[in-house]
Amino acid sequence: MNLPKPIQEFIDAFSELPSVGPRQATRLAFRLIRQGPSTINRLAKSAALLGKIKVCSRCFFIHDQEGPLCDICTHTKREHDIFLIVEKETDLMSIERSSAYQGRYLVIGEAPKSGVLEPWQVMRLSVLKKTIQDTLPSQKAREIIIGTNPSTYSDAMGTRIKQELQSHTEKITFLGRGIPTGGEIEFSDEETLSHALHRRQ
Amino acid sequence: MNLPKPIQEFIDAFSELPSVGPRQATRLAFRLIRQGPSTINRLAKSAALLGKIKVCSRCFFIHDQEGPLCDICTHTKREHDIFLIVEKETDLMSIERSSAYQGRYLVIGEAPKSGVLEPWQVMRLSVLKKTIQDTLPSQKAREIIIGTNPSTYSDAMGTRIKQELQSHTEKITFLGRGIPTGGEIEFSDEETLSHALHRRQ
Repeated sequence: MNLPKPIQEFIDAFSELPSVGPRQATRLAFRLIRQGPSTINRLAKSAALLGKIKVCSRCFFIHDQEGPLCDICTHTKREHDIFLIVEKETDLMSIERSSAYQGRYLVIGEAPKSGVLEPWQVMRLSVLKKTIQDTLPSQKAREIIIGTNPSTYSDAMGTRIKQELQSHTEKITFLGRGIPTGGEIEFSDEETLSHALHRRQ
Repeated sequence: MNLPKPIQEFIDAFSELPSVGPRQATRLAFRLIRQGPSTINRLAKSAALLGKIKVCSRCFFIHDQEGPLCDICTHTKREHDIFLIVEKETDLMSIERSSAYQGRYLVIGEAPKSGVLEPWQVMRLSVLKKTIQDTLPSQKAREIIIGTNPSTYSDAMGTRIKQELQSHTEKITFLGRGIPTGGEIEFSDEETLSHALHRRQ
């Protein structure tokens, strides 16, 4: 049967998102209609505002600051010569919640299944190298911590990143395997993340 | 950590929807930001358009017709004296896809866990009674088919609906149990739905 055009467009638009299938999108549409125009307007507005979010040109986390850099990269009290490389923005958020880390970040993106870094990921590593050269007198980081997830593809990516950055830092470490192998950083509790940071090797 | 306001608002708005948790909303937000402003605008627009969808004042399915009634209720070639009562809009859609039914509908809403019909559900039954009185010369439907899901709460609701409508129809039936008990109408294949319609009793 043909659904009215607005609802079909909504379903099509939402179905294209990863992890949302056509069935969930259809149910979402009917639920929204049932909840009425005020809920719908609030959602539509909040979605439109997402377009205003910027991505930090140094660490690639999101922000809404005036300039091109996020508040973590511009924070004067954070260590500026230690960098933690995470795959996802939500990994960064979990580590921030643990309060166990006071340096900077680089969001590198999820490990590609091909085993080869994507061009935009290589570009992000170049940005980190340039940040090190431009902001540190010694032209070397004090430490780079590789915080990729403990899984096959991510381990491979971590090793690749290590090769790429070794000459740009005095020390390069991986997060301590307090995180259970096969698990996800995003789901780890704060305690486990603190241990993983303190026991990095 | 504090996220920029637009992203937090998006997460809050989407987390309130049933079946979407804060974690899925957060990931959705980051994915949208990664996909860029054109995807975001398309989604926001399609969500806003949902506000234009109307609910049929007779069967309570959605529509975008000029008047208050949907195209199923106004279709001249469909039988106007047989009514199928479904819980959800998506149940109606699945039955329409089977092409095995040519009558009208009533969307009654999901079976309440309290076992007692909600006031708005009682109101919908009254609307059906009034439709029967106003549109049929005999003031009785030829048949009312109860197409609630085969589960404990829905069976209880079905029985309640039967009591409520018995005097307004010549015949009242339940969908044949071709549908496996514990299953969901929405997920049934077209064949099973056809059988359930043909073997109604």
